[in-house]
Amino acid sequence: MQVSFSAAQITEIAQPKVTRGSTHETIVAIASLADAAPGDLTFLGNAKYKGEVPGTRGSIVLLPSDYVGEPADGQLFLLVDNPSVVLARVCARIERELWPTPEPGVHPTAFVAAGAQISAGATIGPLCVVETGAIVGSRVHLQAQVFVGRNARIGDDSWLMPGVVVAAECEIGRRVRLQPGVIIGSDGFGYEFVKGRHEKVPQIGSVAIGDDVEIGANSTLDRARFSRTVVGEGTKIDNLVQVAHNVTIGRHCLLCSQVGISGSTALGDFVVLGGQAGTSGHLKIGNGVKAGGRAGITTDVKAGSFVNGNPAIPYMLERRIVVLQHRLPDLFKRVEALESQLADAKKTSS
Amino acid sequence: MQVSFSAAQITEIAQPKVTRGSTHETIVAIASLADAAPGDLTFLGNAKYKGEVPGTRGSIVLLPSDYVGEPADGQLFLLVDNPSVVLARVCARIERELWPTPEPGVHPTAFVAAGAQISAGATIGPLCVVETGAIVGSRVHLQAQVFVGRNARIGDDSWLMPGVVVAAECEIGRRVRLQPGVIIGSDGFGYEFVKGRHEKVPQIGSVAIGDDVEIGANSTLDRARFSRTVVGEGTKIDNLVQVAHNVTIGRHCLLCSQVGISGSTALGDFVVLGGQAGTSGHLKIGNGVKAGGRAGITTDVKAGSFVNGNPAIPYMLERRIVVLQHRLPDLFKRVEALESQLADAKKTSS
Amino acid sequence: MQVSFSAAQITEIAQPKVTRGSTHETIVAIASLADAAPGDLTFLGNAKYKGEVPGTRGSIVLLPSDYVGEPADGQLFLLVDNPSVVLARVCARIERELWPTPEPGVHPTAFVAAGAQISAGATIGPLCVVETGAIVGSRVHLQAQVFVGRNARIGDDSWLMPGVVVAAECEIGRRVRLQPGVIIGSDGFGYEFVKGRHEKVPQIGSVAIGDDVEIGANSTLDRARFSRTVVGEGTKIDNLVQVAHNVTIGRHCLLCSQVGISGSTALGDFVVLGGQAGTSGHLKIGNGVKAGGRAGITTDVKAGSFVNGNPAIPYMLERRIVVLQHRLPDLFKRVEALESQLADAKKTSS
Repeated sequence: MQVSFSAAQITEIAQPKVTRGSTHETIVAIASLADAAPGDLTFLGNAKYKGEVPGTRGSIVLLPSDYVGEPADGQLFLLVDNPSVVLARVCARIERELWPTPEPGVHPTAFVAAGAQISAGATIGPLCVVETGAIVGSRVHLQAQVFVGRNARIGDDSWLMPGVVVAAECEIGRRVRLQPGVIIGSDGFGYEFVKGRHEKVPQIGSVAIGDDVEIGANSTLDRARFSRTVVGEGTKIDNLVQVAHNVTIGRHCLLCSQVGISGSTALGDFVVLGGQAGTSGHLKIGNGVKAGGRAGITTDVKAGSFVNGNPAIPYMLERRIVVLQHRLPDLFKRVEALESQLADAKKTSS
Repeated sequence: MQVSFSAAQITEIAQPKVTRGSTHETIVAIASLADAAPGDLTFLGNAKYKGEVPGTRGSIVLLPSDYVGEPADGQLFLLVDNPSVVLARVCARIERELWPTPEPGVHPTAFVAAGAQISAGATIGPLCVVETGAIVGSRVHLQAQVFVGRNARIGDDSWLMPGVVVAAECEIGRRVRLQPGVIIGSDGFGYEFVKGRHEKVPQIGSVAIGDDVEIGANSTLDRARFSRTVVGEGTKIDNLVQVAHNVTIGRHCLLCSQVGISGSTALGDFVVLGGQAGTSGHLKIGNGVKAGGRAGITTDVKAGSFVNGNPAIPYMLERRIVVLQHRLPDLFKRVEALESQLADAKKTSS
Repeated sequence: MQVSFSAAQITEIAQPKVTRGSTHETIVAIASLADAAPGDLTFLGNAKYKGEVPGTRGSIVLLPSDYVGEPADGQLFLLVDNPSVVLARVCARIERELWPTPEPGVHPTAFVAAGAQISAGATIGPLCVVETGAIVGSRVHLQAQVFVGRNARIGDDSWLMPGVVVAAECEIGRRVRLQPGVIIGSDGFGYEFVKGRHEKVPQIGSVAIGDDVEIGANSTLDRARFSRTVVGEGTKIDNLVQVAHNVTIGRHCLLCSQVGISGSTALGDFVVLGGQAGTSGHLKIGNGVKAGGRAGITTDVKAGSFVNGNPAIPYMLERRIVVLQHRLPDLFKRVEALESQLADAKKTSS
């Protein structure tokens, strides 16, 4: 956060029931109770941190309306129904300053090919390229240096950040956010080994991204061989994630950073994959499956399962096996002891 | 696939020996027998799916010339020698529409520095940068927003997609495809620890990419310290792969997505590394080596080996050890049982 | 290296105490003693390779001043106090030719918004975008197609290579090198699950990169939720690394390629993480911690520890457990043998 608010402005946003104390500080940041310094707005979002309120150095403190303590000198308490909700209101206001609504229109340095359709309310930022046949919806923001290929379609209210590439024929839904450097529609990785060489299998499908999807920086989503690689509505994908050709991702999934989904694998809805996890190709991952970070999924996974490890197995089993692995040095000693005891017993008995 | 073909056009491409039935549908997609809907072209590429032909809803079906069934109403069967070969011909035709041959010439929004050499047949697309001393070969296509650095060379018939960076002095062979966001010639990661700081070791080498190489979206290949980082002819690299400085990759290798090759490691020819695999530095990986997904290669690997796991070991051994790991809970119980039996035996005997 | 030096030029840079022999070759590359060919400069940097000097085919050889052998025909020996130091001088000279100091000024194809401040000595290369409120320091080089967002600040003498994105409000220190495709200030990956959907948590913080940091190609660093994601002075980050929101990285750390640091994790100073390693979120990794390649850090790690494996444990323990895992087939056999011996013993005794 790099903006500044006066105490009066924060008070106006917060609409407190009660105020206690006062401050002359300009608010320049938000911080936790423990970390806050003068100039910070802080908040009691969780009752368990109540004990930190008296010691906080933040200039303005958002507190639940039943809070009983008094502010320090030069400190303003704002008592509200729900400090977290008020904080979210402040954040939304800051966000508007951080990312102001752009002026509609095509920047003079952008290149829009003849035959591209740009909605009147869209913003095509500096040094963007929009190829022929592309359709850019209302209030779409191509921020800067974005590429939109032939016949690609960008749904209303989507925001493509600097350096994003949406290759030919791909479709982006509404209210989609593509973070910088995202690549949609690179070729799938498909070859046939013919006479000692890898011959390219044409990749002539496309990618379809549903409404309300967000994709993180430098992630890559390949076009299908035929048909479409699909990301369902509301799914959120983190940075540096790989989605191979012909993958289908359901609705409202979460794919953490550096996850890799191999070709033709299908994820259900509400799937959550931890960072650096990966899947083999042609798998079915059911609805609501969860996988831990670095999990290596090599088989189909039933809906509702929680898996972990490499190869991934049920979470509780994996945890138990890891504990036993760490006890292997002990186990080897115990087996040696048994062997020598048995040898001794034989000697004795013979 | 987003193009449209009439039944007559498909028939012309397929050159069938026999046709059965007819359709008025325009073909707008290709799909498998099971997935096909009206408007789809489908095909029997593998005899084992023969049973799916009668139930397919595709409008045109490519079938081997000895196929005996009859089409449904509004369905056209094309009997050909090899349905897969005909399908490839259709795909190639679609690919030409998807990626039409660009007009040669330098786009007015591109910046080509004085002293760069652009072949007459090359296409320098919108908002590309070509620095001085660079040489761009015949029929090369720099699609859009591509960067070609000082003295870099791009071989004939290569295609660099949007956002590709080929840094100074690097060499790209002929018929190379660089998917969007590929970085060729970033600095190698080399430092010397001097007086409590990491001092940069100059990275003054380059990268040499052989003929017929393809590199996937957002992959990165570092320039050598001296000399060259090398990718051999015909090798195919998937998305988000890291190739460190002074690495040598042989001919006709396949590196799947998110693989990482550490500095100075040398891969032979026909090496195949599964997704998310990685190698330590300064290793020799022999010809024809295969490594499973997520393998962590920490030692030299002999030609022809198949390794798996982390650290990577021979594949069959790794599979066996994984099975035994999953039986550890049982093993611990068995050892406990032995211990108590032996303790009982001692008591009895004493 | 793609430059050329005459023997006279190399001699002038080397300032040798003694020269032996002579060469007419132009020096076009640097290579090791074993790999060098005519036209190469080579060097004896480590006494253990002394035996390779007589066989080297390099045209010029840098040798310590006490070296006694004679050059081959057409070979020039330069005897100097410290061949490695002289080599570094040659490399620095080559680097200047590889990356010549750019002319200050704004390229006519760049877009600099009103309200951006560009220092007189800075170079804004072709097709760069600098948004309003941004401050670009002295001798900064935005090479080409770089994006600098609203109110971002780039410290003196920093170099941003092609395709780098520094999003709004982020701060880059002095003498920072950002390799091609680096993304600074993408949104953190934060959602709250509300009524069956992932609602975005506003990410309104920024990223602060310290002095003398270097970041590798296509790496991504997310902005904080509030406050700042921080990379300390002198830290070096390799390619395709992910640094999540609210992460704090100390000074003089090394993060190898494809490492992922999850949200709010704090690294101390002088931390070294091997390639493809990852950490869970909200951890504390102490000063001087080392982790092997592919380590999966899931708990806090004390200063000075060396950890390995997934989940990461102390290095020596992990090595021992791996050895024992590979002996599991043997262990299972031994336990079976014990069981059958004990069964036999019982039969005998009964």
